[in-house]
Amino acid sequence: MKVSNQNEEINIVSNNEIIEFEGKHLLLELYNCDSLKLNDESYIRCVIDHASKFANATVINLVSHKFQPQGLTAIALLAESHLSIHTWPESGYAAVDIFTCGKNMKPELACEYLIDSLDSAKHYLRILRRKSPLEIQDHVKNSY
Amino acid sequence: MKVSNQNEEINIVSNNEIIEFEGKHLLLELYNCDSLKLNDESYIRCVIDHASKFANATVINLVSHKFQPQGLTAIALLAESHLSIHTWPESGYAAVDIFTCGKNMKPELACEYLIDSLDSAKHYLRILRRKSPLEIQDHVKNSY
Repeated sequence: MKVSNQNEEINIVSNNEIIEFEGKHLLLELYNCDSLKLNDESYIRCVIDHASKFANATVINLVSHKFQPQGLTAIALLAESHLSIHTWPESGYAAVDIFTCGKNMKPELACEYLIDSLDSAKHYLRILRRKSPLEIQDHVKNSY
Repeated sequence: MKVSNQNEEINIVSNNEIIEFEGKHLLLELYNCDSLKLNDESYIRCVIDHASKFANATVINLVSHKFQPQGLTAIALLAESHLSIHTWPESGYAAVDIFTCGKNMKPELACEYLIDSLDSAKHYLRILRRKSPLEIQDHVKNSY
């Protein structure tokens, strides 16, 4: 499945003296998902863990919280930043964001996996460049 | 201190049939920060907790990780979504994102607090609207 990206890149120019592209921040809206899956904490934790690996990221910690009467949040703390999901099962909707640093990251693959895993019939993806200082380009942190 | 916002709102139009504004996603770059503060895990945890409260948010969980030789990540899981910070003390740089749902949220106040607390001499803020379904507008989750 190919992710359709209506805005391939939203590159907001700021200060010339700083900055080259280093990190990507993806905002993904998932509509018409399977509501049961969106409310299944174990499943969502597993999906987030797998999605992180599809992005070529290293999961350091994974936290989640289930709300009442429904809905949950799961966040993976990555060596390369983070991946979060917030779900509203009553609407079949999930809001995802993925922030990755380093040229070897493939956050778009994580998006494809999430779309498939949650049976999302419609989605909307935005990709933004973070404006990091040049010197940290490709400077991926060590996990420990 | 007033946050300068070079892009008051980046509103990417997608599908007409869905969607009204519900959540805000803020991407904040902090430059020329105090490097010692950026590498102080206890301090950053405290700052994230306070920033969440300035945003009028409820902190459910707060996780952090310190990298070697420097840098850290801290993420607050909120009843109203999340607030994250990733720091590169060697460059005086921090990347923040805040996702909040609900009209009572004040994520811009969290940004002001973070700028002050980390002694950031320069910053860059982008505010994006999340494209949530209409029916979850103002539907803030219960924490427990």
